[in-house]
Amino acid sequence: MSSTPTELIESLQARLQALEDKESIRSVLNQYCIRPDNYDFAGYARLFTEDGVMGFDTWGEMKGHEAIEKACAAEKVYESLLHLMTNMEISLDGPDTASALARVWFCVTPKLSKVEENYAFGGPYKFTFVRTKDGWKIKTMHLRKVWSMGHDTEGIFVK
Amino acid sequence: MSSTPTELIESLQARLQALEDKESIRSVLNQYCIRPDNYDFAGYARLFTEDGVMGFDTWGEMKGHEAIEKACAAEKVYESLLHLMTNMEISLDGPDTASALARVWFCVTPKLSKVEENYAFGGPYKFTFVRTKDGWKIKTMHLRKVWSMGHDTEGIFVK
Amino acid sequence: MSSTPTELIESLQARLQALEDKESIRSVLNQYCIRPDNYDFAGYARLFTEDGVMGFDTWGEMKGHEAIEKACAAEKVYESLLHLMTNMEISLDGPDTASALARVWFCVTPKLSKVEENYAFGGPYKFTFVRTKDGWKIKTMHLRKVWSMGHDTEGIFVK
Repeated sequence: MSSTPTELIESLQARLQALEDKESIRSVLNQYCIRPDNYDFAGYARLFTEDGVMGFDTWGEMKGHEAIEKACAAEKVYESLLHLMTNMEISLDGPDTASALARVWFCVTPKLSKVEENYAFGGPYKFTFVRTKDGWKIKTMHLRKVWSMGHDTEGIFVK
Repeated sequence: MSSTPTELIESLQARLQALEDKESIRSVLNQYCIRPDNYDFAGYARLFTEDGVMGFDTWGEMKGHEAIEKACAAEKVYESLLHLMTNMEISLDGPDTASALARVWFCVTPKLSKVEENYAFGGPYKFTFVRTKDGWKIKTMHLRKVWSMGHDTEGIFVK
Repeated sequence: MSSTPTELIESLQARLQALEDKESIRSVLNQYCIRPDNYDFAGYARLFTEDGVMGFDTWGEMKGHEAIEKACAAEKVYESLLHLMTNMEISLDGPDTASALARVWFCVTPKLSKVEENYAFGGPYKFTFVRTKDGWKIKTMHLRKVWSMGHDTEGIFVK
C-alpha cells in the first residue's frame, strides 16, 4: 500500500458514510409508510422539510407541514391503511442532497371486520431529499397512480 | 484529526458492525419468506429461538420450534406459497437485541395449473430478535391481517 | 489488539467491500424494474452480460442483448408497466460471482385512462451475477409465475 494509514481511514470513513446515508434515507422512506399507517399524520408531515412538497396525481400538490398533514388525515375514514414501498433506488447527488425512485402497493380497508372489502392502488414514486440538522428530510415527492384494484367506497382516492 | 488511528479504527468497526447486523437481520427476514415458500417448514421454525413465539391474528400464538413448524406445515395443501415482505425497519436496541417492523403481501395458490385462482392477504409485522451463538434469531413475531383478495378455498387462513 | 493497524484496515476494507457489492447488486435489481417500466428495453437488456440468459416460464429462454431486448419490447403495448421486486437475498459466492433470490409483483395496464383494468402476476426469481469491468451484470435470470389477477387483454403474458 502506498497510502498512509490516515489516508486509508479517511477513505473508509467516506465509503461508510455513503452506506449510512443510504440506510438513513431508507429509514425515512420506511417511516413514510409506518407513520400514516399508524394514523400519525403529523409525524408523516414532519418527514418533509418545512417547505416540502407532496405531489400526487389525484390530489395535486400540497406544500408545507400543515397542508400535507391535512391532506393525509383525510385517510382516517379507513380502519386500515397499509403502504408497501419497494425498490428504493437512492442517489447521493451531493454531500447534503439525494434523490430516490421507488414504487408503492397501497391498500385501504374501510372496515377491519370485512378485510376482503378494500381498495388497492399503486405506482412509481420520485423523491428528493436534503440533509438538515435533524437528519435527512423529504424536499419533494411525486406519486403517479398506474393501477388499482377494488372499489374506493369512501371516495378519497378516486375523483 | 485528534483521535489516534486505533481510536478511529474502533469507531469504524462499530459503525460497520451496525450495518452488518442490520444486513444479517434482513437476511433472516428474507429466509422467513424463502423457507416456507420452499416448503421447508422445519427450517422456517429454526429462524426462531427455541422459545420463540409466532403470533398471527387468525391462528393465535404458537411457541417453540415444534408448534411453529406444525402450524405452518398446514400451508402445504397449496401448490404455491409466495411471501413478499417489505419495509424492514430495524432498530438495534442493545448489543444483542433488536426489533423490526415490516409488511407482507402473501399469496397462496391451490393449483399451479390455475394460477389465476388464488388467495392473497397481508398486513403489518412486528418482530423482536436476539443474537445467539448461531446468529440473529426471531424471539417474537406478530402479524395482523388487514386486507385480503380472492377466496381461500382450502380454509387455512379464513376461520 | 494484537493486529497491526494495517491488518485491521485491510479487514475493514474487505467487510465494507462486501456491503458495497450487495448494495451494487441491489441497484442492478432496482434498475431491472426501473428501466423496463420506463420503456428502456435496450437499457434493460444491458443489465445482462453479452451472453446473459433471461428465462421466464411463459416465454422460454432468451440469450443475449438483442433477444432479451426484443422479447421485453413486446410489453410496449401496455401504457404502464410496474415491477415491484422484494426480498433480494444476495450471496457473494466468489470475488467476482454472486447469486440472488427475489420475488416480484408485476402489473401491466393497457390504458392509463382506466387504471382499474389491469393484469398482475408474480412469482419467485433466481439470478446469478458476474462482476465485469462495467460493474455487476446479470448472467442468468429465471422467473416462475405462481399467481395472477385480472385479465391480460393483450395476451403477452398468457399463452
